[in-house]
This record gives sequence, C-alpha cells and structure tokens, in this order.
Amino acid sequence: MSLHIVILAAGQGKRMNSALPKVLQPLGDRPLLRHVVETAQALEPAAIHVVYGHGGERVQQALADMPVRWVQQAEQLGTGHAVAQAIGDIPDDARVLVLYGDVPLVRANTLNHLVSAADNGALALLTVVLADPTGYGRIVRDDDNRVQRIVEERDADSAERHIHETNTGLLCAGAAALRDWLSRLTDDNDQGEYYLTDCIALAAADGVPVTAGQAASEAETQGINNKLDLSRAERLFQRRQADALMATGLTLRDPARFDLRGVLRAGRDTEIDVDVVVEGRVILGDNVYVGPHVVLKNCRIENDTRIESHSVVEGATIGARCAIGPFARLRPDTVVADRAKIGNFVETKKTRLGEASKINHLSYVGDARIGRDVNIGAGVITCNYDGLSKHETIIEDGAFVGSDCQLVAPVTIGRDATIGAGSTVTRNAPADALTLSRVRQSTVAGWQRPSKKTTK
Amino acid sequence: MSLHIVILAAGQGKRMNSALPKVLQPLGDRPLLRHVVETAQALEPAAIHVVYGHGGERVQQALADMPVRWVQQAEQLGTGHAVAQAIGDIPDDARVLVLYGDVPLVRANTLNHLVSAADNGALALLTVVLADPTGYGRIVRDDDNRVQRIVEERDADSAERHIHETNTGLLCAGAAALRDWLSRLTDDNDQGEYYLTDCIALAAADGVPVTAGQAASEAETQGINNKLDLSRAERLFQRRQADALMATGLTLRDPARFDLRGVLRAGRDTEIDVDVVVEGRVILGDNVYVGPHVVLKNCRIENDTRIESHSVVEGATIGARCAIGPFARLRPDTVVADRAKIGNFVETKKTRLGEASKINHLSYVGDARIGRDVNIGAGVITCNYDGLSKHETIIEDGAFVGSDCQLVAPVTIGRDATIGAGSTVTRNAPADALTLSRVRQSTVAGWQRPSKKTTK
Amino acid sequence: MSLHIVILAAGQGKRMNSALPKVLQPLGDRPLLRHVVETAQALEPAAIHVVYGHGGERVQQALADMPVRWVQQAEQLGTGHAVAQAIGDIPDDARVLVLYGDVPLVRANTLNHLVSAADNGALALLTVVLADPTGYGRIVRDDDNRVQRIVEERDADSAERHIHETNTGLLCAGAAALRDWLSRLTDDNDQGEYYLTDCIALAAADGVPVTAGQAASEAETQGINNKLDLSRAERLFQRRQADALMATGLTLRDPARFDLRGVLRAGRDTEIDVDVVVEGRVILGDNVYVGPHVVLKNCRIENDTRIESHSVVEGATIGARCAIGPFARLRPDTVVADRAKIGNFVETKKTRLGEASKINHLSYVGDARIGRDVNIGAGVITCNYDGLSKHETIIEDGAFVGSDCQLVAPVTIGRDATIGAGSTVTRNAPADALTLSRVRQSTVAGWQRPSKKTTK
Repeated sequence: MSLHIVILAAGQGKRMNSALPKVLQPLGDRPLLRHVVETAQALEPAAIHVVYGHGGERVQQALADMPVRWVQQAEQLGTGHAVAQAIGDIPDDARVLVLYGDVPLVRANTLNHLVSAADNGALALLTVVLADPTGYGRIVRDDDNRVQRIVEERDADSAERHIHETNTGLLCAGAAALRDWLSRLTDDNDQGEYYLTDCIALAAADGVPVTAGQAASEAETQGINNKLDLSRAERLFQRRQADALMATGLTLRDPARFDLRGVLRAGRDTEIDVDVVVEGRVILGDNVYVGPHVVLKNCRIENDTRIESHSVVEGATIGARCAIGPFARLRPDTVVADRAKIGNFVETKKTRLGEASKINHLSYVGDARIGRDVNIGAGVITCNYDGLSKHETIIEDGAFVGSDCQLVAPVTIGRDATIGAGSTVTRNAPADALTLSRVRQSTVAGWQRPSKKTTK
Repeated sequence: MSLHIVILAAGQGKRMNSALPKVLQPLGDRPLLRHVVETAQALEPAAIHVVYGHGGERVQQALADMPVRWVQQAEQLGTGHAVAQAIGDIPDDARVLVLYGDVPLVRANTLNHLVSAADNGALALLTVVLADPTGYGRIVRDDDNRVQRIVEERDADSAERHIHETNTGLLCAGAAALRDWLSRLTDDNDQGEYYLTDCIALAAADGVPVTAGQAASEAETQGINNKLDLSRAERLFQRRQADALMATGLTLRDPARFDLRGVLRAGRDTEIDVDVVVEGRVILGDNVYVGPHVVLKNCRIENDTRIESHSVVEGATIGARCAIGPFARLRPDTVVADRAKIGNFVETKKTRLGEASKINHLSYVGDARIGRDVNIGAGVITCNYDGLSKHETIIEDGAFVGSDCQLVAPVTIGRDATIGAGSTVTRNAPADALTLSRVRQSTVAGWQRPSKKTTK
Repeated sequence: MSLHIVILAAGQGKRMNSALPKVLQPLGDRPLLRHVVETAQALEPAAIHVVYGHGGERVQQALADMPVRWVQQAEQLGTGHAVAQAIGDIPDDARVLVLYGDVPLVRANTLNHLVSAADNGALALLTVVLADPTGYGRIVRDDDNRVQRIVEERDADSAERHIHETNTGLLCAGAAALRDWLSRLTDDNDQGEYYLTDCIALAAADGVPVTAGQAASEAETQGINNKLDLSRAERLFQRRQADALMATGLTLRDPARFDLRGVLRAGRDTEIDVDVVVEGRVILGDNVYVGPHVVLKNCRIENDTRIESHSVVEGATIGARCAIGPFARLRPDTVVADRAKIGNFVETKKTRLGEASKINHLSYVGDARIGRDVNIGAGVITCNYDGLSKHETIIEDGAFVGSDCQLVAPVTIGRDATIGAGSTVTRNAPADALTLSRVRQSTVAGWQRPSKKTTK
C-alpha cells in the first residue's frame, strides 16, 4: 500500500510579524517547511504533496530543489479544506499521512509508527502527553486503552480535563475513507472553517477503528506560531544536533552554547569550546580544537589543528598541526598547508599559505600564493586592488617579509628573499637578496611637540 | 481614595559583599530600586515615599531624577519601624502600598490587583505559591478561601507546612488603620525589631478583613540578598525583555543568550544572533542582522544593514544596506551613509563615511569626513593627534587611498585623488591626481639574513 | 581507625570514543580522576589506592604529582575484582571507602557522612534519590528506615519500582569484612564479572548492619560514560564554581555563561560579564570589570581596571585603573603599569608598559620596555625579529611615536622624543627631538587610475 504525504503549508503566520511566510522561517539554516519535507522523505513515500497558499511563489522557490507536488489552496478555509485540495491526486488504495509545515521537529521514527498504526483501515492519530494540556483536545481512551474520542477543552468535564494526552493534528488514514470524510465536513463552527480533526468523529461514527501513535516528547509536535515558538524550536533543534554529535564522540564544552546551521563532521578527540557557531558544511579532523567565540563556515580543518578564540573561518581549507587565531579572519579560498600559522588581526582571502609559513600579526593577505617556510612580518599588506581589478602576489619559499611592507601586486618576492621593514615593493624582489625602499632616518634637534603637558 | 506607595530601601545588604548599597545593585542597566520606583510610577500614586538608610546619599544621587519623597530611617529597627517613618506624611484617607527596594521584579499589574484587594478597608497581602515554601510564612485560608492567618515555619504544624502559598511582605492597607497597627507593634522578638508583618495579626484581631492578591510567579516576589539572587533576577529580567521583544516580531536565535541593558526598538524581520549585548538606546530598522558576539551601544542602524560577528558599535549611526564587520569597532560619532562598508580590524571615531564608501581592512579612521565612493585601503591611518590636539582629515568623493598610508591631519584628499600605497601625506593632495611619497626600491645583493636555519 | 580510599580507575570508556582513557577526560581543567583524588585527599585518609588498567601509563603520568598508591588491574573482571587488587595492602582494622574515577562530582562532605555511617562494623552505602530511577538498583528499607536490601530493576516488583532511592556503588566498610566478602564473590552472572555490589547481600546474610548515606543531589553521583555525560558534568561543575564565587561577592552577569578552568580569586565589587572564559590562575582586584567575550589566562589585574569586550589576556600583569580592549590581545610577560591603556587590535608580548602610557590602536609591541606617559600611535610595530633572534625596543618616558612607525630592534627611543608618522627607525632616536624618515610628498598630475567606474 503506497504512502502519500500531505503537508499543510498555506498559513500566513500573522503572529510571526514577518514579511516571510511562516513555513519559510528558518530553523537552523533551513526553512521550517524544508525540515518537514526532509522528514517526509525519510519515510520514502510515493509522493509528497505540499499545500501552499500565502507567499506561494516564495515557498515554491525556497523548495525548488525538492521533489514535491505543489497544490494550491487559494482560500484558507481550514485544515480539512487544505487536505481536500490534495486528496484528488491520491489513489484510493493509498495511505495518507498529514503533516504540517509549521510542526518541524516531528521525527521520522514517530511517523513510521503512526503510519503502521493506520493498518487495517484504522484512522491513526498522533498524540502527545503534555505537562500542561490546557487548551488542547484530550484523547479519551476506553478500558482497553483504545482511542474513543477527542474532547475539546470547552466540552471536557472535570475528569477529562485531567487527561494529559492530547491531539496533535497529525494523522494517517486510507485515502478512500479520508476522501469520504473530507467531503462530509461542514464549516458550521465559530471560525467557519473545515476542520480535519472532525474526520475523527466521522470515522468513529462509521465504526472505523481509531488508533494512536504517541510522540516521544512535546518538542516533536510543537507548532510554530510566533517568534517565541520559533526560538524554542531553534534551541530544541540545536540540542538535538548537539546530542547527536556528542554521541559520535565530539566534545562540546557546553551543548547549550553551540549552534550548527548546516552539517558538521568531526573526527576523534575533537573539541568545540563554548559559544561556537558552525555554518554550512564543516569537516573537522581528529584532535582539532575550536576555541570559544569562533565562527566556522564551509571549511575543512585537518588533524591536530587549533583554531583559537574569536576567529572567523569561512571557505577555508586548513592543514594539519596549524595554529590559527585568536582573532584570525580567514575568508574564502584561503588554503593553509600543514604546520602553518595565522595569528591575531590577520585577514586572508584567496591565498595559499605554504607549509610551516607564518602570518602572525596584523596583516592583510589577499590574492596571494605563498611558499613554505615564509615569514610575513606584522602589518604586511598585499595591495591587490588598483581600483579596477585584483592582482596576485607571489612569495616564494623561505622569503622573509619585514614588518609593515606593502606588496603592490602583481609582484613576486623571490625565494629566500628578505624585504626590509616598511618597504613599498612595487617591482619583483630577487631571490636571496635584501630588497627595501627606505629613507635615511634624520633628526630635527630643535623641534618641539605642540605640547608635552597634555596627553589625551 | 489616593494611593501612597512606601518603598523600603534602607537595608545594607551585607551579604552582597559590596561597597554599593543593596538597592543600588544593578539589574539590566538600572539599580534595583529604580526598577521598583518605575513600577510604582506605573500605578500613578499620589506620592512615592522611599525610606532610605545605609548609603543614603548615594541612593538619593542614583535616583536624583525621580519624583520621590525621601524619608530617612536613621536606625534599622525593622520593616514596621521603616514604614512608620513614612506614615506620618500620608493622609488618613489614603491607601498605602508597601514595596521593597530589593524586590525588583514585581509587576504593576499584580500590584494593581493588590491595591484593589484592599478596598472596603481590607488589609491586602501579596502572596505567592512557591515550589519549595520552606522557611516562609504560610497563608492559612478558611473554607471560604479567605486568608485566616499567616503561620511562620517554626509554628506551622505538619499540614500547614504543606501549604505552598506564602507571604511576600508586600501589602496594602488604609493609612489610618496602618498607622494604628504600626503604633501597636512591639519589638518583643529574637531580632528585637518591629515587623510590618505583625500588622496582619493586629488587623485580624481588630476584625479587619484580610484579603490576598497572588503573584503570577515566584520571580515577581523574589528578594535580592546576595549575588546569587542578583544573578537569578538578572536572568529573569533579561528573559522578560527577550520575550517582550519576540512578541513584537524580533527574531532572537537564543533568548537565553541575549542581554539588553537599556532600550531596544527593532523593525520587522530583524534578527539578533547569539551572545549579543545591547546597551543604552539602540534602534534597529527592518531586516537588520546582528551577528554573534556583537556589542551594540547607543546606536541606530537602518534597514537591510548587516553587523557581522565580533563587532562593537557604540554611539554610531549606520545607514541602510551597509556591511559592518566582522571585527569592526565603531566608536562614538561615527556616521555611516547607506551602502557603505567597514570591515575587519577597523576602528572609526568621530567620522562621517559617505555613501558606498569602504574601509575594509585594518585601519584607524578618526576625526574624518569622507565623501561617497571613497575606497580606503588596508592599514590606512588618520594621524589625528599631534600630542596636544585632534585635527581633521577630509577625503572627498571618489578618492582612492592606497594601503598603509598615513594621513597627517589636518589634511584634505581631493575629489577622485589617488594616494599611492605606503605614503605619508602631510599636505593636501590635489583632486584627480596621484599623490605619493615613495622611495625607489633597491636591492642589496650580497646581503645575508642572520640565519635561515631557524625560524621562530 | 584509619581510612583507606580505593578509587576504581581501570575502565576504558569505549563509549567516550576517545584515545584518552576515560578517567583522564577533562572536567574544567583537570582529568576526572584528579577531581576524585582531590576529593579523597580532603578526607585525609591513610592512603589512596588507585586501581588502574586501560591506559595505565598515561593515567599515572597525568597524576604523577599526587600521593597515591598505584594498583594494577591487569584484567577487567568487574568492580569486586578491582577492589580485591587493592585490598591486600590495607590493614584489617582500617575502614575502606570505594570511589570511582568516573564519578567526579561527589562531595567530601557527603563522603564524610558515608564514612561515619560505616561505624560499628556497618557496611555503609551511598544512595541517591533520582527523579527517574529506571535501570538503577532500588534501596529497600524496613519499617525503621534501615536498609534491608538492594533490588535490581529486573527483580523489582511494581511497588519497588516506585522507589526513587537508588544505589550509587560507592560504599564504605571495614577492611577485614570487605576482604572476606570479596573473596566470596562469584562471577556467576551474565557479564561474568565480580560485582562489588554483591558484597551487600553477603553482608546482610552475615548479619552485618547495612546503613546508608544519601547524596545531596543526582549530580554528585553521576557517572561519566560518554560525551553527553561529560558535558553535563562540566556544566554542573562550572555551576558549582560560579555559585561559590558569587557567594564570596563576585558579580556574574550570567553564571550559566561562565567557564572557570583553574583558580580565580576576585576582590570586592568585581564583575564578570557574559561569556567569559577564565583559565589557569587568575587574580582580580577590587572593582575590576571583565567585559563580554573575554578570555583570561594566568593573569593578575589590579583594582579599578576594565578589560573591555573581546580581549584575550594571557600571562599578563595589569596595574590599577587601566583600560584594556576591546579587542586587545595581551600575551605572556606583558606587564602594564597603573593607568595605562591598551586599545583595539593591539598585540603585546614580553613588554613592560609604563604608568599612564598608551597603545591605543592596531599595533604590535613585543620585547619592549616602555616608560611612563608614552604615546604609541596607531599601526606601530616593533620589528623584534630578524629571522634568527628577538631584539629589544626601549622607549623612554614621555616619548611620542607617530602612527605606522616601525621600530627596528634593538633600538632606543629617547626621553620625550617624537617620531614622525610612517618612519622606519633603525638607529636610536635622541631624546627631546623629532626623528623621522620621510620622503617628500609629490603629485603626478596627469595620472589616471585604471578606472573610476568600477569599485569592488
């Protein structure tokens, strides 16, 4: 029996107070809806139908790469109406699982159980035990623990209000039966909407067995309606990721202060200190240390390398046994060979740094190819930009560039060359020699500073 | 019937281990007592009487701008004695609400209810349900749920100890009755103090009805006695602010890692990443992004601008569509026009940066007026200080300042001028021309570095 | 009666997924086992016996300075077997306390009670009340509240499963009795191991009274088996330290965002802002402020000094009333006199900075001795390294070093000397004079930049 998944994603989410449709609000690095579709994919359904409405074009663009069938709900007439838009495309003999674009943390495992519970023609509800069930429909079970009915808060008697198992709105049923129930829904209620939940009473009236799968935690079924909900979901999502990474052996000094917005793979005995943010695709080798207050984005860092505190590493590849930071800023296309060092207040961009070479202090190195065993002094700047285009600086093996030099690209510093401190290098500097541009130091003896009394 | 509010603020707070009087310890950016006075003001009372004692002068100075009546309690003889110092100034027909300078999180709404509960001559207590009531006076109610009496921990029987509703010390009563009860208090107890709480028994004995208002949470009535209490109150206060901001639509990646010490206004679709500290008065437009580990203080940031990680922005005004940071440090009187960029390891101070102009790397720009479409290279420094005074640098539209230049102020760089890398500019540089101060590069062929074997 | 403590530290900890033996995983700055040994030392025992196995050499090295007796457990045949390896060295009349190298947070006070509970020949167990006791052996007590027996989860009836008091594995007993019970243990169980816990049944069968001490919290007895456990223990440990520091009067803006890996002493009215990491031995005076996102390591900071945000201070001594940061990076052997300032993007190393001297912007100062009232401009660099060795820079009182100078060491700047901006100083600069190396500025009138249309 094939499985069709319908995801309701038409809501506007006014309480989000945002120009972005609710289902596109980000969780980690991805829209809420993308999380739901990815979970749906894990169930390997025959098709995923996404019912869109508000902000439809943006929603479709944001998921353009995902194999879903788009179903428009032009008017927002309730959840039952939304599912009805999709049901026409689903064969009678399929099972239909209904998910919500704003309930992003439900787990595939939970859904698999729910789908199984819909065997033999049953209508299967996902329920959840809430610490505080106030406001939610309670699940009333009979003596055999079978679901008897759902009672809404307003209709619940005192005993029923003490039930903590509640309805989540997620459900699974056969397509033929569901189509029939949907056709019999009415909008005879305060909101004037067609409620999917009303199918349950219809099923019960038809003598269809109602079963239930239970979510493992409140988090799984939490709907996102405002920014407070979104912040809670973000922390739950981050905590899940942190726990999964620790299970593989990663050391996190504080899992509550770790943000992963993408994918992280880490080797053995690798440690991430507090307040680190990881974005995009990041690969860490064995025994890597990532210091506090570091931001990593789309980078690869090999074994035994340390990224010291307050560094920002983006789009870089860093070899083994390197020392980066603190306060290093590696920009895209920085490639650092083994045992190299990049120190404080150094910015690199589109630069290859050779083995055991060093840029330890206060430098800007961009569009450069640097050999091995090169020492770049403090305050060195590659002048790679002439106001129109970028040019390349080449520094060959063993060169020593004194402090505060400007290397006006295109320019090459030869192998084992030495550049005197403070030089402006506009032409190639030959290998094995000292090159400099320097004015003789002179002293003006009688000169007086504006004043010596006051210092700021 | 007029309302007079008496705030007890005379305690020393020895357990704070501080030279600062307890009620001046900071919560967010303001002294504890200021929070209480602000809440009191929200009730629009006829007068606010602050009873001070320890550190009186400092307390008065810290609240010099607030319209309160200062009442000295020269000796610390208990809460009843403290209120007695103020009661003389309060007319008989007023209601008196007693608050505490070290109970800063009580809400105006709760107090309004409390004041209402003191109608018809009742004595109204503020109570709170505590998860762990150990040590607190329990509220014993009769079958009609009216407050019967308060029983102290030591006098409570086993059943009474299971009561979780406790007395908070905050109360409201008619001035005449309160004056009478206060005059009948004795210091016949272990501490030898006059307890305000003893008024309750006197009221009951007089047949005065005792009513109660209940605080919504433990947090509201938490007293601050030591630094642990203070840290808890700080986090509760921060959480309240974060929740209020999220309710207006602000996205906080982690409300538990957000500190607001002042006032923040944010537009639509604005996001604040983790570990941001906001101080003073900060206004953010729509669709602003504030990256992780950023500190903002007294600044205004317009629509669509991004403040990247590890930036410190203070006293600055930043236009729309700007890119600031990471590692940017904007100091007071920095004014940045639309679409401008300030990059890593750049410090600005008292500087206007024109539209679409850029200072991307490792520069210090102070006391400068910079036009539009200007490009400031890496390592550029405005030498604004001659040891005595500060001077101004003017850079006109379209100029290009090469890397590592020093602009010795006062100096003007003309429109569309180009300054060669590494120049020391001591006189005005004309428009449309290349200005530089450069020594011809030379090479010393035979020269040998001290050694090539060892590198540090 | 003498006390011998046996610490079981032989486990491999496969679930740690680490090359490091489990008991060497770090908590704060110290291996788990070191915490346990330190706690054991607080009980002033006659001897501490550490039973090691996996990674034995590394374990012994890591605790080489601690006065423990090493006992090898060549094969891992269970906790009973492990204690049996040590029992031979313990005199009959001693009491034996068994601890675990992976249960690091147990408190000395709790253990003292446990040892007392083993008086009069009793076997004393440490128990703990767990919110969720699932999986743990329950403590069954008789009507007189004496421990009757321990029932394992699988053997527990429904009533017993509702017992929340559980066995921790920590116990204390007389050496002679324990030796006897250990000799009677069998490995007739699923794991084929000798369980120390089985001694309890033997004791009961022998008519020996079984008593219990109760741990104050779950945290105390939490065993560390994986990185998730380790992260929890880390946060509990950090929270303990934070609470202890706040009890002495330290203000922590957020105790949940404070990491101390070492020892911190702080004076009165000192405040540590959010997200600060403290390592090694750090001493803070009175009224010191440590800003957000700061890292302090092995340093001493005197009264009234402010360390602004995003600074990294290591191995430095900082006087009173100094202003450091933001974005300052002080490296080892930096000694800063009173009222001095080190500003943003400044790195210092092995440098003495005199009273009221300033290095405010974008500088590297290493191997330098700087007098008082010296002003170091922006972008100044001490060229202390010639490729082979480090040389010293001396700057005498009152000197003014203009922006962007390179001071090529060894070199001395005389008292009250002025160095012109952009100079390369290779020889000593005389006192009271202006020294500079500067090229006259020139302008190339007809020159055109590659283009003015495009700016990057």
